[in-house]
Amino acid sequence: MKDATLKQIAAQLGVSITTVSKALKDYPDVSKKTKNAVIALAKKLNYTPNSFAVNLRTKESRTIGLIVPTVDYNFFSKVFEGVLKEAEKRKYLVIILRSNEKLEIEKKQIDLLLKKRVDGILMSLSNETGDFDHINNIIAYKTPLVLFDKIAKLVNCSKVMINDRKAAYDAVTYLISKGHKKIAHFRGSYIPQNSIDRFLGYKRALEDNNIFYDSSLVYVCDNNTDFEDGYNNAKKIVNDHPDISAIFAVTDLVAVGIIKYLNDIGVQVPQQIAVFGFCNSFMSEIITPKLTTIDQPGFEIGKKAASILFDEIELIKSNKAFEFQSVELETSIIERESA
Amino acid sequence: MKDATLKQIAAQLGVSITTVSKALKDYPDVSKKTKNAVIALAKKLNYTPNSFAVNLRTKESRTIGLIVPTVDYNFFSKVFEGVLKEAEKRKYLVIILRSNEKLEIEKKQIDLLLKKRVDGILMSLSNETGDFDHINNIIAYKTPLVLFDKIAKLVNCSKVMINDRKAAYDAVTYLISKGHKKIAHFRGSYIPQNSIDRFLGYKRALEDNNIFYDSSLVYVCDNNTDFEDGYNNAKKIVNDHPDISAIFAVTDLVAVGIIKYLNDIGVQVPQQIAVFGFCNSFMSEIITPKLTTIDQPGFEIGKKAASILFDEIELIKSNKAFEFQSVELETSIIERESA
Repeated sequence: MKDATLKQIAAQLGVSITTVSKALKDYPDVSKKTKNAVIALAKKLNYTPNSFAVNLRTKESRTIGLIVPTVDYNFFSKVFEGVLKEAEKRKYLVIILRSNEKLEIEKKQIDLLLKKRVDGILMSLSNETGDFDHINNIIAYKTPLVLFDKIAKLVNCSKVMINDRKAAYDAVTYLISKGHKKIAHFRGSYIPQNSIDRFLGYKRALEDNNIFYDSSLVYVCDNNTDFEDGYNNAKKIVNDHPDISAIFAVTDLVAVGIIKYLNDIGVQVPQQIAVFGFCNSFMSEIITPKLTTIDQPGFEIGKKAASILFDEIELIKSNKAFEFQSVELETSIIERESA
Repeated sequence: MKDATLKQIAAQLGVSITTVSKALKDYPDVSKKTKNAVIALAKKLNYTPNSFAVNLRTKESRTIGLIVPTVDYNFFSKVFEGVLKEAEKRKYLVIILRSNEKLEIEKKQIDLLLKKRVDGILMSLSNETGDFDHINNIIAYKTPLVLFDKIAKLVNCSKVMINDRKAAYDAVTYLISKGHKKIAHFRGSYIPQNSIDRFLGYKRALEDNNIFYDSSLVYVCDNNTDFEDGYNNAKKIVNDHPDISAIFAVTDLVAVGIIKYLNDIGVQVPQQIAVFGFCNSFMSEIITPKLTTIDQPGFEIGKKAASILFDEIELIKSNKAFEFQSVELETSIIERESA
C-alpha cells in the first residue's frame, strides 16, 4: 500500500491531483467535504506523502544534524535534551553523530550531513580540531551552522557558549577566599578553546591574588569519557606535591576521579585537599563528599543553540537578512561539600 | 554552487551524464582518468550528489529512527552509544526521538518517522504503552522494526532484551543467600514488561525460598529521570517497616535515591539495610557505598538491536526471506559494597 499515489486517490474520487494534494495539506480553497473524502481514502490506502518528493520540491528536510564529540553521561546528555526539546517545539528532526574527539571522523560526519542536505548543523568541536577548513566548508555550502561549547573563535557563524575563563577565575578565586594558596589545576587537552580558557582563568586568578603560578602544578587530563585520568593524576600529584591544599579540575568527571583516589587512600576532602569541579553534572550530587562545582547550563546551551539555528534556517528561507549571534550563558558556583 | 548539476559537469568535460554519475559512484566501467577529472571538477564546483534525488531513485535513505522513552545519563546513553557504533560501521544515520514516557508522543514520533520514510525503526516503549496499534502500523508500512529493552511480547518483530525475571530472581536470591529475609522491592510502573518481570522475579525468589510475599513491602517508583522516587519511598518504608533488612530496587537510579536517604539519616548500608540496584550504570561506582547491582549490557543491547535492524533492511532490499529474532543478552551480578 506504500506506493498508493496522489494519482490513484484523485482517480478514485474523480477530482484533480492538485485538489488531492491541497486537501492533504489542508489548503483553505478545498471544501471540507472533499478534504474528508481524500483523507479517508488516503488512510484506507495507508498513504503518507512521500517526504523525499516533498523535500525535492521544497528543498527543505526539516532535519538538522548534531555533531557532539562524545556521548557522555553528563554535559552532552543535557545539551542533547535541550536540543530535542527545542526541535520538538519547532517540528524538526535531529540526526545525531559523534566525532569521538577525532578530527578525521568530524570531517566525515560533516560530509555525510552535507550530502544528506540537512537544513542546518549544530556542533561542538573535537579535541583535535585545530584548523577549520571543513567547518568553513559548511558555510560555503550555505548550510546554517551554530557552534556550541567547544567553539572556534575564527569561524564566522553563530555561537553559544559560557565564559570559561571567567567561570574558572571565579572557581579559583573561591578557593583562594577559603585560604588556599597551593592550588593545582587538572586541565583538559591543549587544543580546545574551553580547555585553554579554563586554564587561563585559573592562572589569572592566582596572579591577581599574588600567588606564584607554578606550571608543575598543572596536570593534563585529556580523556573525556571516564574518570581514570583524574584518578591517576591524583595519585601522581599526591606523590609529587604532597603539600597542595586544593585542586581545580577541568570537569566533574576529572574531579570525581580525584575524589575517588583521595577516598581510597584516606585523604580527607575537603579538610586535607579541597576539590572543585566544572559542569554540575548528575554525579556531583552522588559522590561523597558532594562536589562543589561550576554550573554549566547544558540544557540551556542546547536549547539556545537549536533555537538560533532554526531561526537562521527560517530567515534564510524567507530571504531575510540576519546577523550572527554570540551568546554567552551565565555560570554560577554551586557550593557543596568538597571545597 | 550548491545547484551545480551532473549536467554541467558532463557538458564541461564533454562526457555523458551517465558517465559522470557512474564516475562519482566509482563504477568499474569508467576509466580512472575520467573518474579523476569528474571528481576534480565536482570538487571545484562544490558539488555533492543530491541525496533527496538519490533517495527517490533508490527508495533508500540510509537513515533509521531511534525512539527512546527518556534521554537519561545511564542506560539509554549506553544503548545510544551501541546504536551509533553499529550505525557508523554500517554507514547509516540515526534520527533520535524521545517519547518522554508518553503514549501520545510515541505515536506522533512514529508517524514522523514513517512520513520521513526512514529505512527502519529501533524503539523502546514508553511506560504508558499498553496497546500496540501504532506499533503494528510500522509493520503494516513494511518498515523494519526492532524493539529493545521495553518490548511488547505481542508485536511480531525482532526483539533484543535481557531476561528481567531471571535477573531479578538472581538478585533477590543473592540477598537471601546473605541471610536477608525481610526484603522490600521498589518496583517500576505497572505497564512496562520489564518492570512487571523484575517484580515477578522478586516474588518468585521469595516463594522458592519459603519467604512469605508481603505486598505491603512493594513500593512503586515510576519516575525514570531522577532519584527522588527512591529517596521519598525510602523515607516512607523506614517509617512503615523499620524492620526490613534489604531493598531490591528496579533501577540504579532508584537505588541511589535510597542510599542517599539512608546516608542522610545515618542508617548504615549494608549493615542495617542492604540495597541492590539494577543496570550497573556509571553512578553505581560513584556512590558511597558502591552499589551492588545487575549488569544490564546497554551498549551491547543497542549494538545488537541496530545490527539486526540493518540486516533486515538489507535482506528486504534484496528480496530475501528471514525470520524475526528474539535475542536475550546475558546479565550478571556485580558485587560491590551496598549488599
